[in-house]
Amino acid sequence: MAILVQKFGGSSVADVDKLRHVARIAADTKESGKQVVVVVSAMGKTTDGLVAMASELCPNPQDKTTAREYDALLATGEQVTTALLALTLNAMGYPAIGLSGGQAGIITEALHNRARILEINTDAITNHLNNGNIVVVTGFQGCDANGNVTTLGRGGSDTSAVALANALNAERCDIYTDVDGVYSTDPRIVPHAVRLNKVAYIEMLELARVGAKVLHPRSVETARQADMPLTVRSTFTPEDPGTMITGIDALELDRSITGIACDKHQAQLAIEAVPDKPGVAATVFGTMATANISVDMIIQSMNRQVDNVATNDIAFTVSGNDVHAAKDTLSELCKAIDAQAVHADTDVAKVSIVGAGMIDRPGIAATMFEALADADINIKMIATSEIKISCLVPQTQADKAVQALHAAFFPEAELGSKMTSDNVLVNEKLGY
Amino acid sequence: MAILVQKFGGSSVADVDKLRHVARIAADTKESGKQVVVVVSAMGKTTDGLVAMASELCPNPQDKTTAREYDALLATGEQVTTALLALTLNAMGYPAIGLSGGQAGIITEALHNRARILEINTDAITNHLNNGNIVVVTGFQGCDANGNVTTLGRGGSDTSAVALANALNAERCDIYTDVDGVYSTDPRIVPHAVRLNKVAYIEMLELARVGAKVLHPRSVETARQADMPLTVRSTFTPEDPGTMITGIDALELDRSITGIACDKHQAQLAIEAVPDKPGVAATVFGTMATANISVDMIIQSMNRQVDNVATNDIAFTVSGNDVHAAKDTLSELCKAIDAQAVHADTDVAKVSIVGAGMIDRPGIAATMFEALADADINIKMIATSEIKISCLVPQTQADKAVQALHAAFFPEAELGSKMTSDNVLVNEKLGY
Repeated sequence: MAILVQKFGGSSVADVDKLRHVARIAADTKESGKQVVVVVSAMGKTTDGLVAMASELCPNPQDKTTAREYDALLATGEQVTTALLALTLNAMGYPAIGLSGGQAGIITEALHNRARILEINTDAITNHLNNGNIVVVTGFQGCDANGNVTTLGRGGSDTSAVALANALNAERCDIYTDVDGVYSTDPRIVPHAVRLNKVAYIEMLELARVGAKVLHPRSVETARQADMPLTVRSTFTPEDPGTMITGIDALELDRSITGIACDKHQAQLAIEAVPDKPGVAATVFGTMATANISVDMIIQSMNRQVDNVATNDIAFTVSGNDVHAAKDTLSELCKAIDAQAVHADTDVAKVSIVGAGMIDRPGIAATMFEALADADINIKMIATSEIKISCLVPQTQADKAVQALHAAFFPEAELGSKMTSDNVLVNEKLGY
Repeated sequence: MAILVQKFGGSSVADVDKLRHVARIAADTKESGKQVVVVVSAMGKTTDGLVAMASELCPNPQDKTTAREYDALLATGEQVTTALLALTLNAMGYPAIGLSGGQAGIITEALHNRARILEINTDAITNHLNNGNIVVVTGFQGCDANGNVTTLGRGGSDTSAVALANALNAERCDIYTDVDGVYSTDPRIVPHAVRLNKVAYIEMLELARVGAKVLHPRSVETARQADMPLTVRSTFTPEDPGTMITGIDALELDRSITGIACDKHQAQLAIEAVPDKPGVAATVFGTMATANISVDMIIQSMNRQVDNVATNDIAFTVSGNDVHAAKDTLSELCKAIDAQAVHADTDVAKVSIVGAGMIDRPGIAATMFEALADADINIKMIATSEIKISCLVPQTQADKAVQALHAAFFPEAELGSKMTSDNVLVNEKLGY
């Protein structure tokens, strides 16, 4: 029997009425002849309450010394939702079993706050499915080989769902959320943004990496690896098929770019006047890697003379979450590499255009830079990939930048045409 | 190094300030040169909130079909406290590790809501202690051999603590609570009740069985088996040694009775007109046992003729929690055993006098019945053991019964003398 994996986020399970609604969706899917695995997040504000208590008792609960305890704390949020949903399904007459990440066989690396899934032993889930149960699994968590509870970090519930779908060889993984799909850009910034029916994994991946929060990049990458069809759809209109994320082969690339994303939760770090010696960059980024901080855009400016020594300035961006850890790490490193100073700037945003269609189409970058220049927006850093161009801009100008780019690349939407193209890809609607 | 196990109940960990206070007690104990294992309950109202949501979503969450999910739900309460306390201790500079029941090696039978501990594998705890950690363990829970989360039922956190103390060969197990020890009876009913310094396990056991809720009988029995010294003491005056529960050898029995307990959470079930055939009682109580319902007082009245058949009436008491399940079970059984009807009466209370000193002292029962008769209290059932006499009375008359018995057996306290005897045992102060 075909297996469907359905994931419901925090706003979809925020109270008992919503839990009943989610149970109904899962039960209807079961009635339609599928085996159903439901992956749930913590209920709306539960996590906030836990985080608030932890922060009151411990200044930096995410620190290495306490990360294990913090994970164990946060993991209870999904455990509550899972147990309540399993109770609800049973009360409705649908046998259901709730499993924690560890019970579901989700083994992760022994790293807290942002562990990666190493393997999934699906025996328990398969047994329960074959006994006629709907299986409810906690998103966002697993356990390491020693049985310590780990969490997967932001977007972890989506990743749990997709990884389970892959491991179970499911027919599809449906990500139910409070938006009805993927849009050409954030409709809060551009009200006439377009809802898309199909998006390529690789495009979604780039969009997600640069701030389209409707799906976490890790979950998209996980789906891409197994070519697992993924939908983003609304919990509140479950009959709407939403946006399907698929392989690039299924798309016709009749459009140069497919989406515009904006990530305001970024920080720029700069190390001033590092003596120009071999190995300095390796030391800096090796240290960041050891501290488990992901680095994104990197610029090294060359050959400034300071006290008759040739020096470089090195600048890079990190997630806003990591800015304190990154600054502390760099400040310690400063003396070792003879750098003059470290600066952190959180007043930045990364605006990106994404599209598989830009491959072999010259001039896209020029159009982007022109559009930003015409809008009087200063570009602080630039980074490119095959299907993406990102510019770091002042945070206060981020919305203006997105609007200018949407006008440049989606002129027909600007004219008020109500497109619903099959072959265009896009971005977040409402952020979370 | 000697190990101390400290258990803190829900009111002791009700908010972040109280958690800090508890962390201080554990840290001071660690500073005094002990290895410390802390067992915690769920924070004050957490469990109530979980129970309320579960009840809204599922009419009888404790039922067999959903008991597994309900246990998983309730177990999160202690997991939250455990993680927060471990975070707090680390923030104070005391390395600490939080363990769930399963992580702590507490293996229980595969029964939900009221599982018994089968064994404790102390390897994980011992390793963490030997690495210099304070180990915080969730009370009230374990897991079965298949990794399903189980809860130990009422009083389970005390039992967890004592069982851990036994398994770790601890020096002592301290039960910190919101009262400062064990009293001669409930001070809310008898304001001049006496606080006791020492109580025998066997007396505490009988008192606990009949409603003295300061310690759950299972925890007392567990301590008795290993002769583990147990104290009941106040979280808010940790320097006060409280009441020590020890072996009977340590006591001098200069007093006929040592405590008066009252359990208002009882129900009486009666099966009317059961044909007088061999095996009927075995069928009735076998069925109750199969349904996992503990039966307490039992009366069988003989030889009433109904339609020319000799019949018996069988009456017994169960915990108030079990009255619905017991009545349903009996009603099903009614036809099979040709009984006429089943009645349930929850308007009852069990009032008991307890004391190792009543052994070989005749006339105690007569004094009890006289005191109740003088107070115009009707006795519905009587049950006795070597060191206990219990009477079932109307619930409305329960307090009056306790007062009458305290006056009869503790005349000197009635005269206002402020005894603090070493050799007297007692009862709950504030119920929970």
